[in-house]
Amino acid sequence: MSAMTRTAYLLVFLGFLARTCGQYQPTWDSLDTRPLPAWYDGAKIGIFIHWGVFSVPSFGSEWFWQNWQGVNSSDYVKFMDKNFRPGFTYPDFASQFTAEFYDPEAWANIFKASGARYVVLTSKHHEGFTNWPSRYSWNWNSVDVGPKRDLLGNLTSESQQVASVIVTVFIHTAGDLAKAIKSTTPDIHFGLYHSLFEWFNPRYLDDKTNKFFTNDFVATKTMPELYELVNKYEPEVIWSDGDWEAPDWYWNSTVFLAWLFNDSPVKDTVVTNDRWGIGVTCHHGSYYTCSDRYNPGVLQLHKWENAMTLDKNSWGYRRNAPLADYLSVHDLLTTMAQTISCGGNILINIGPTHDGRIAPIMEERLRELGSWLNVNGEAVYDTTPWKHQNDTVTPGVWFTSKEDTVYAIVLSWPKNNELVLGSVNSTPQTEVAMIRYPSSLQFQARDPSGITVTFPPMSEVTSQWVWVLAMSGVDSA
Amino acid sequence: MSAMTRTAYLLVFLGFLARTCGQYQPTWDSLDTRPLPAWYDGAKIGIFIHWGVFSVPSFGSEWFWQNWQGVNSSDYVKFMDKNFRPGFTYPDFASQFTAEFYDPEAWANIFKASGARYVVLTSKHHEGFTNWPSRYSWNWNSVDVGPKRDLLGNLTSESQQVASVIVTVFIHTAGDLAKAIKSTTPDIHFGLYHSLFEWFNPRYLDDKTNKFFTNDFVATKTMPELYELVNKYEPEVIWSDGDWEAPDWYWNSTVFLAWLFNDSPVKDTVVTNDRWGIGVTCHHGSYYTCSDRYNPGVLQLHKWENAMTLDKNSWGYRRNAPLADYLSVHDLLTTMAQTISCGGNILINIGPTHDGRIAPIMEERLRELGSWLNVNGEAVYDTTPWKHQNDTVTPGVWFTSKEDTVYAIVLSWPKNNELVLGSVNSTPQTEVAMIRYPSSLQFQARDPSGITVTFPPMSEVTSQWVWVLAMSGVDSA
Amino acid sequence: MSAMTRTAYLLVFLGFLARTCGQYQPTWDSLDTRPLPAWYDGAKIGIFIHWGVFSVPSFGSEWFWQNWQGVNSSDYVKFMDKNFRPGFTYPDFASQFTAEFYDPEAWANIFKASGARYVVLTSKHHEGFTNWPSRYSWNWNSVDVGPKRDLLGNLTSESQQVASVIVTVFIHTAGDLAKAIKSTTPDIHFGLYHSLFEWFNPRYLDDKTNKFFTNDFVATKTMPELYELVNKYEPEVIWSDGDWEAPDWYWNSTVFLAWLFNDSPVKDTVVTNDRWGIGVTCHHGSYYTCSDRYNPGVLQLHKWENAMTLDKNSWGYRRNAPLADYLSVHDLLTTMAQTISCGGNILINIGPTHDGRIAPIMEERLRELGSWLNVNGEAVYDTTPWKHQNDTVTPGVWFTSKEDTVYAIVLSWPKNNELVLGSVNSTPQTEVAMIRYPSSLQFQARDPSGITVTFPPMSEVTSQWVWVLAMSGVDSA
Amino acid sequence: MSAMTRTAYLLVFLGFLARTCGQYQPTWDSLDTRPLPAWYDGAKIGIFIHWGVFSVPSFGSEWFWQNWQGVNSSDYVKFMDKNFRPGFTYPDFASQFTAEFYDPEAWANIFKASGARYVVLTSKHHEGFTNWPSRYSWNWNSVDVGPKRDLLGNLTSESQQVASVIVTVFIHTAGDLAKAIKSTTPDIHFGLYHSLFEWFNPRYLDDKTNKFFTNDFVATKTMPELYELVNKYEPEVIWSDGDWEAPDWYWNSTVFLAWLFNDSPVKDTVVTNDRWGIGVTCHHGSYYTCSDRYNPGVLQLHKWENAMTLDKNSWGYRRNAPLADYLSVHDLLTTMAQTISCGGNILINIGPTHDGRIAPIMEERLRELGSWLNVNGEAVYDTTPWKHQNDTVTPGVWFTSKEDTVYAIVLSWPKNNELVLGSVNSTPQTEVAMIRYPSSLQFQARDPSGITVTFPPMSEVTSQWVWVLAMSGVDSA
Repeated sequence: MSAMTRTAYLLVFLGFLARTCGQYQPTWDSLDTRPLPAWYDGAKIGIFIHWGVFSVPSFGSEWFWQNWQGVNSSDYVKFMDKNFRPGFTYPDFASQFTAEFYDPEAWANIFKASGARYVVLTSKHHEGFTNWPSRYSWNWNSVDVGPKRDLLGNLTSESQQVASVIVTVFIHTAGDLAKAIKSTTPDIHFGLYHSLFEWFNPRYLDDKTNKFFTNDFVATKTMPELYELVNKYEPEVIWSDGDWEAPDWYWNSTVFLAWLFNDSPVKDTVVTNDRWGIGVTCHHGSYYTCSDRYNPGVLQLHKWENAMTLDKNSWGYRRNAPLADYLSVHDLLTTMAQTISCGGNILINIGPTHDGRIAPIMEERLRELGSWLNVNGEAVYDTTPWKHQNDTVTPGVWFTSKEDTVYAIVLSWPKNNELVLGSVNSTPQTEVAMIRYPSSLQFQARDPSGITVTFPPMSEVTSQWVWVLAMSGVDSA
Repeated sequence: MSAMTRTAYLLVFLGFLARTCGQYQPTWDSLDTRPLPAWYDGAKIGIFIHWGVFSVPSFGSEWFWQNWQGVNSSDYVKFMDKNFRPGFTYPDFASQFTAEFYDPEAWANIFKASGARYVVLTSKHHEGFTNWPSRYSWNWNSVDVGPKRDLLGNLTSESQQVASVIVTVFIHTAGDLAKAIKSTTPDIHFGLYHSLFEWFNPRYLDDKTNKFFTNDFVATKTMPELYELVNKYEPEVIWSDGDWEAPDWYWNSTVFLAWLFNDSPVKDTVVTNDRWGIGVTCHHGSYYTCSDRYNPGVLQLHKWENAMTLDKNSWGYRRNAPLADYLSVHDLLTTMAQTISCGGNILINIGPTHDGRIAPIMEERLRELGSWLNVNGEAVYDTTPWKHQNDTVTPGVWFTSKEDTVYAIVLSWPKNNELVLGSVNSTPQTEVAMIRYPSSLQFQARDPSGITVTFPPMSEVTSQWVWVLAMSGVDSA
Repeated sequence: MSAMTRTAYLLVFLGFLARTCGQYQPTWDSLDTRPLPAWYDGAKIGIFIHWGVFSVPSFGSEWFWQNWQGVNSSDYVKFMDKNFRPGFTYPDFASQFTAEFYDPEAWANIFKASGARYVVLTSKHHEGFTNWPSRYSWNWNSVDVGPKRDLLGNLTSESQQVASVIVTVFIHTAGDLAKAIKSTTPDIHFGLYHSLFEWFNPRYLDDKTNKFFTNDFVATKTMPELYELVNKYEPEVIWSDGDWEAPDWYWNSTVFLAWLFNDSPVKDTVVTNDRWGIGVTCHHGSYYTCSDRYNPGVLQLHKWENAMTLDKNSWGYRRNAPLADYLSVHDLLTTMAQTISCGGNILINIGPTHDGRIAPIMEERLRELGSWLNVNGEAVYDTTPWKHQNDTVTPGVWFTSKEDTVYAIVLSWPKNNELVLGSVNSTPQTEVAMIRYPSSLQFQARDPSGITVTFPPMSEVTSQWVWVLAMSGVDSA
Repeated sequence: MSAMTRTAYLLVFLGFLARTCGQYQPTWDSLDTRPLPAWYDGAKIGIFIHWGVFSVPSFGSEWFWQNWQGVNSSDYVKFMDKNFRPGFTYPDFASQFTAEFYDPEAWANIFKASGARYVVLTSKHHEGFTNWPSRYSWNWNSVDVGPKRDLLGNLTSESQQVASVIVTVFIHTAGDLAKAIKSTTPDIHFGLYHSLFEWFNPRYLDDKTNKFFTNDFVATKTMPELYELVNKYEPEVIWSDGDWEAPDWYWNSTVFLAWLFNDSPVKDTVVTNDRWGIGVTCHHGSYYTCSDRYNPGVLQLHKWENAMTLDKNSWGYRRNAPLADYLSVHDLLTTMAQTISCGGNILINIGPTHDGRIAPIMEERLRELGSWLNVNGEAVYDTTPWKHQNDTVTPGVWFTSKEDTVYAIVLSWPKNNELVLGSVNSTPQTEVAMIRYPSSLQFQARDPSGITVTFPPMSEVTSQWVWVLAMSGVDSA
C-alpha cells in the first residue's frame, strides 16, 4: 500500500474519529460551533502580503499567468511579446525571483510600526509556486529555484522576534513593569494564505475535466501540502482561496478543518476564513470574507474581514502603478473606520518586489497608519461595534465602543469646528473628549436629539487626517 | 588633414574670432560679463534626473562603478560577488537598462504638476554612457545597447509638449486670453547634465597619467560630444560636472563657453553652472553650485543653485533605500525656502529606475511640492531676496520679496497662533495676509521693533505643511 | 476514492487478471517465458540518444547535477562557481535547453545513413526532467520550460517518416518492386530510455529514507508516467535505468511488465532491457545490459546489448571533449564486431547539444559506420553467432554467420596480404570471398588445421578500415 | 595641441623621414622593393582563426551583424526574431563571448600537431570588437566585456611556448643535436588579422558619407590601433582586410607600411598581405591574396596565399553547419597541393566557439593534415614550384621541388598501380621513390615522353589519402 493510499485511509479514519471522539466533526454544522479564538477579534488590523513568481513580471496583477496564457489578455500578451524572447515561459520567471534584498527583520519592523496585530503571507498562490520547500512541489518552490530560501520560515522566526521586541519595548517605555505584563501582550500573529487550486496544474485540470469526480490533485497535492504547512509553520490564520470552481467535498475541506480544530498544533488559536468550496464563502468559517475588498457598510452578524489593497488595482506588486493608484492614508483610515465599526477586521495588502523590498510608498502608508494608531489605537483594538455604525446626520463619522466609552471616528474636520452627531444623545453623565487633547470638549444637546460637539483649535490637536472623540455616559439616539 | 585636426583648428579660429569679433572671448574675465538669461533666476525650481547604467544595479549610488571597481568598496564588491556571475562587468549592466516603462509624457505630467520650471537630465554621467546616440561613444550609448532609444530626444519633445499644454490650460482656466498671453508663459526649460571626465575611459586615464599635458580625450571625446549635444538638443542649461581633476585649459572650457555664448543655437538663453576645471567652481559660470547640496543659509553675491536629492544618500535610484532615506515634504519645503530666500534656485533630484519609472514615493514628493506651489507659488517664482533672509527672532521663517510685497515662509505653525517677526517693522501702510486666506491678518507692532502676527484658525487655511504671509508696506527692522 | 487510489487498485486487479487470464503473470518466471520479438535480434545496430537539461551545462557528464550537488565533486563545484552567479540552481538550466536548431528530419537522415535499425531516446534521465509533457512532472518538462516542444512526439513522427522514406528508396534503388515489398521493411524502431529513480525528487528520497517500505514516488510518479509513455508514444524498446537502489517490488516492475506484454499497444513488438530492480540486471528482461559498455568478448547465453558511447567518457554532450575522447571509426567497428559476434546488439550513444544539434564529429562517426555497413551489412544484420566468436590464431578477427555463410570480420589488413584463420577448416566445397570484391579469394589449408587466405590488392577493395570475408562450405576447426 | 593632432604631425614627419632617411618610402614603388622575409615562403602552411562576438550567435557566418542589420537578410532576421527578445542588440552578444573553455596551450598543441608554421588570429573583425584591450575601443573589447582576457596576449605567449617545445622535440627525436640546431628552427610564427573598416562605426560612416575626404576614423581609430597592435604584440603577419570601400590614401596605408618596414619592432620579419585600399589588392603587399579562397591553379609571378576555410561556407564558427559543410581531409590536401605547387601558401581557417573550443571536427582535420605532413612534409615545406605545376597527362598530380628533387603529389591511387606522368622525363640518373617506402620504385620511359611509375602495394605504404613521389635526376617534359 502506498503512503498516499495510507494517507487517504488516514483521512477517512480521522473523519471517523472526529465523529466519535473529537470535539468537532467534519461537517459545517459541527465546525460552525467552534468559538472564534479571542485574539482575532481584538486584533482588528492585519497585513496581507502577496509575494510570488508574479512579483517578477510585476505587471498587471498577481493573475499575470492566467491573464497572459489563460485568457490571452492583450495587454499581457503585448507585454511579453515586447520584452521577452519567444518561448519564454512563466516558469522561466522563477529564477529571477531573487529576493536579494529580503530582510525579514526590516519587514517585521515595518509591520510593528504599522500597528498591525497579525500578518498573512501567501504560502502559495494560484500559480502553484510554494514559498516553502514543499515536498509536493519539486522544482517549483522557493528553495529549489529563485530565492533559495524558505520564505515562510524566515518570516516566522522574525515575527516571533518582533513579538519579543514589542514586549521589551513596552516594558521599558511604559516604565511600569507590572501594568505592562498584565496587559495583553501586543503580539503579532502569523498566518498563511493558501490557494486550493492551481490554474495550470495538469492534475487539477484533469479533475476539473472529470467534473471533480476524481480528486487526484487534492489527494496528492492540496491536502498533503496543507498538512505539511500547518505542522511545519503553525500558522494562526489559514487564509484559504482558490476554492470557487469545486465543492467542499472535492477539496476535503471539512475533514481538514476538523483535524485543524481538533488535533493540529494550532488547534486552540488558529482561525480560518470562509473560502472552502462552492457555496461555503460567506456562510461558514471562523470569519467571512465574502468577496475581495468586502466592505458592507452595515453591521454583520458574523465576524468578517475586509481584505483590501494599498494598490487599488492589484494584490501583487505592479512596477508601473503610478501614485494615483495607491490609497492615500485618508483613504486607508476611512476604509479602516468603516470596517471596524461594522464588526470587521481589516487586512491591508502589500506586494513586495521580486528582490525582496517593500516599496517606500507602501512603507509610508503603513507607518502613517501606525502613527495614527499610536495616538488613536484605543478606538480600534479590542473594541466592539456600537448600536450605530455611522452617524445619522453627519456623513463620515463612524462609531466603535469599549465598555462605557463610545468612540466617534471623524473623517473630516467639521466646518466651523462644530460637529453634529445625530446618533448620540447626551445624559447628565456625558463627557466628551478628543483623544490626546487634555481638556474635555464642550457639547450641546440638540433638539429633538443628538449633540453638537465643539472641536478644539486644530493647531492644538495631536492626531492627523482623522480625529477620534471618546464619549462616556452617552445614549444612542 | 583629418576632420579632427580641422576641428582643432576651428576651435583655435573661433577663439581668434571671439577675441576680435564675438561678444565674448574665451577668458573668464570676458565670459563673466555675460548677464544671466532672465528666465533662470525667475524659475527657482528645477528637477534634476540621474538616469544611466547605474540605474540597473541601483545599489549604493550612481557612483557604483567607481565604488565597485575603482576603490573596491566592500559593500559593492560583496553585492556583486553575491548576486552576479564571476566575470560580470559593468558594461554588462547596459543590456538591462531596458526602459520598457519609460513614458516621457507621464514624466512630463509629473514635472508639470511639481511646479518645476526647468528639468536637467543626465546626458552622460561619469560612467561615460551617453543617453543619446553619440557618434563618439559607439556601443556605449542608449541606442546601441539597452533602451534602444534616444532618451534625450524623447524627453525634449515631450517637454515642449508640456509647455504647450500649460499654455492651453492656462488660457482655458484663466478665462482671459489676453492676460494669459501677456504673462510670462509658464514654460519648462530643458537642460542637460554632462560629465567632462569618464572614470574608466582609457583615453582619459592616459591624459591623466600625462598630467594633462596631452588632451586626446578632450579633443576626441569631450568637446566633439558637447558640440554635438548643444547643436542637436539645444539645451538651455548645461550642468557640467566631473571637472575636478584637471584645469580648465585641459578641458578647453573657456573656448567652448565662448562658442556657446556667441554662436550656439542657444546663445541667448542658455545658462551653465560652474564646474569647468580646478579652481573654477564657485568662481565662474552663469551660476554657482559650489558643492553638492550647497545651501549656505546666507545671501550670496552671485546667482547660485542648490542641487539636492530626494533620496538623502544618492542621486541615482537605490532599490534598497527605505522610506527613512527620503526627504519628507516638510524637509523639502524647508530646503526650498532656505535656498530661495538666499538667492538660489533649487534643483531637486530624482533617480528613475532601469525600466523607466519614477518611484511613487518620488512622484508623491513632487506632487506635494506642486500642490504647495499651486497655493504659494507667488512667494517663490520671480521673487528676489529681501533685506533679511530669515527672521532674527523666530527660527524657521524665511523671506522673499516681489515689488512692494515681502513674503514670510513660515515652516512651523506658531504656538498659540501668534507669530513674532523680529525682522519686520510695520508702517501705517502695512497690510499682512496669508496667501489664499480671504481676510487680512491682525498684527501688532512690538517694542522696540518687530511685529506679532495673529494666524487664522488652522482649520480654515488652504496651505499644508508650511504657510506664507504676504506683507505690504513693511520695513525691515 | 482518488483516481490515484483507483489506479492502485487497477494495478492490483491487473495483476490478478494476469495471474488468471493474461498470457504473462507478474513474476519473473512467467515474464521470462516471453520470446524475444524477432525484429530486435536482427536489428543489431541501435542509436542511443542522451538529451536533457544536462545538455545545457554539457560539462563532465550527464550526471552533472549529482556530481555537483549530490557528491560535491570539486570539478563541478568549481565550474559552477567560476561561471554562474551564486544561487544559480540546476533547474535554472532548463530555460537554456532551447533546442532552436532541433531538426528531427535531419537527425532521422543521419540515423538512416548510419545503418541503425533502432533508436532509443532518453524520455527522462535521473534528473527527472521529462522530454514530453508529462502530467506528473509539471513545470519540469520540455513543453513547460526550455524547448517548448514534445521532444518524443517530434522524433516519433519523423522516424516514422524515415521508415517510409527508406521503403521508397529501397523500392526505387532496388528496382524490383515486388521483391522489395516482400522483404522485411528496413524500418527503424523507436524506443525510449526511462529512469525509474530521480536523484533529488523529495518523494523518492522519502521512500528511500523509509527503506522503500513506502512507495509514494512509484505510485504517483514512476508508474503513472510509464503508462502514459507507453500509451502515448508506443515505444518498441523500453530502456529502463536508475533501478539499482531498490528492489523490483518497490518499483512495481513485474506488474508493469505483465501489462506491457499482455495488454499494452506494443505488446507484440516491445522489448525491454534488464534494469528493473536490485538483482534483476543481467538476470531478467528481454535482453541483458549487465553494465554500461558491457562487452564480454565471449558468447552469451541470453540476448544482450552493448550500450556504449562515441564520447568515451560521457553519455551526455560534453562541450569540452577533445578529439582524443571520441572513438575513431576503427574503434567503433572493433567494438561492433566483438559485440555482434558474441550475440549482442550494439547501442551507440550520442549526446546532442542543448540547442538541438548532433556535433559533426558524431555525425561523421555515424556516417562512417553507415558507409561501412552499406558495404558489409550482410555480415551484421540478421546474422547469428558462429561456433567460434573470434579466431584462435589471428587476433582481431571476429565471426558471424547466416545460413551456410560464415563471415570473418577482419580488423587489420593482414601482413603480406596473407590472413591465417585458425578457427576455420576448409572442405572441398569451400569458397572464400571478400564482400564486394568480384573474384573468389585464394586460400590454402594449413597443417594441422585452419586456412590461409590471400587478400586481394588493397587498392582494389571496396571496404575501408575493416574487411569482411564471406566463407561458404567451411567447418569450424 | 592634442596628442591626436600631434600624432597626425608625427605621421607626416615620419613620412618625411622615410623619404629622406629610411629604407622605404611611403609609396608602393618603394615598398614593393622590400624582399619577402624568408620564413614566410618556406612555411607554406598557416592557420587562420576567426574569433569574435560573431562566435556567439555562430549562425550564418562571421558577417552576422551586417547580414542581420546591414542588409536585413531574412534568415538572420528570422533567427533573431525567433530566439531573442525584441530590442536585443548585437553588442548584447558580447557578454556571452565567455571563452570559459579557452585553453591556449591546448590550441597551440593542436596547431603544432597540424604541421602549421604560422598562425593568424583575428585581432578585430569588421564588427570592430578588439580581442585585446585596445585603448581606442573602450567597452567594445575582450577585456572590458565578455572573455575578460587579452586573447592576443594569451595566444602569443603560448605560441612562443610551442616554438620552444618544437625545438626541444626536434632535438630529441632527430637525435642529432648539431644538425638540429643548424637547421632552421621549425618555429610557429604569430600573425594578426585586422580589419581596417568597421561596418557600423559612426565615425567610419561619417567619413564614408564624406566620400573619404575626411578621415577622422582612420586618425582616431584605425591607425592608433594598428600602431598599438604592432608595438604590443609584435605580429609577424599583418593580415589586413576591410579595405575595399576606400583608397589607400584614406587608410594611410603606405605611411603605416613604411613605418612597419623601417622602424617597427618587427621590421625585419613581418609580412603583410595586399588588402590596403581600392586597387591595391593583388597588386601590392608582401604577398597577394586577391580574393577569398584564391586558388588560381597556375603559377603566379608574385608570392601569394590561399586563405580558405574548413567550413566551406563560413570563417566564423557556425553551430548549425552539418558534416557535409566541412572539407574532408582529401579536399584539404587537394587544395593544399594545388596551392603549394603554384607558389602559394595555404592559410587554413578555423572558427572557435564562443566558449573557447575548437570543434573536434576541425581538430580532426588539422590533426589529419599534420599526420600527412609528418610523413610527406619534405614535399611541402621550403619547396619551390617546379617547371610544371600539374601533370599534363594524369589529372590530380601536382609538383613541387627542392634542390635536385621533384615531388609529385598524387591525389588518387593510380589504377592498376601504374601512374603515368606526362610532365616528367627520365634520365640515366633518374631515381623515383615514394616517401617513407623503403625501396625505389620501378618506372619506364614512355614514348615519346613522360614516364610510367609503378606504385608499391598499397598495403605497404605509409601515407594515407594522398601519396608523394620523390624523383631525382629528372627533366621536365
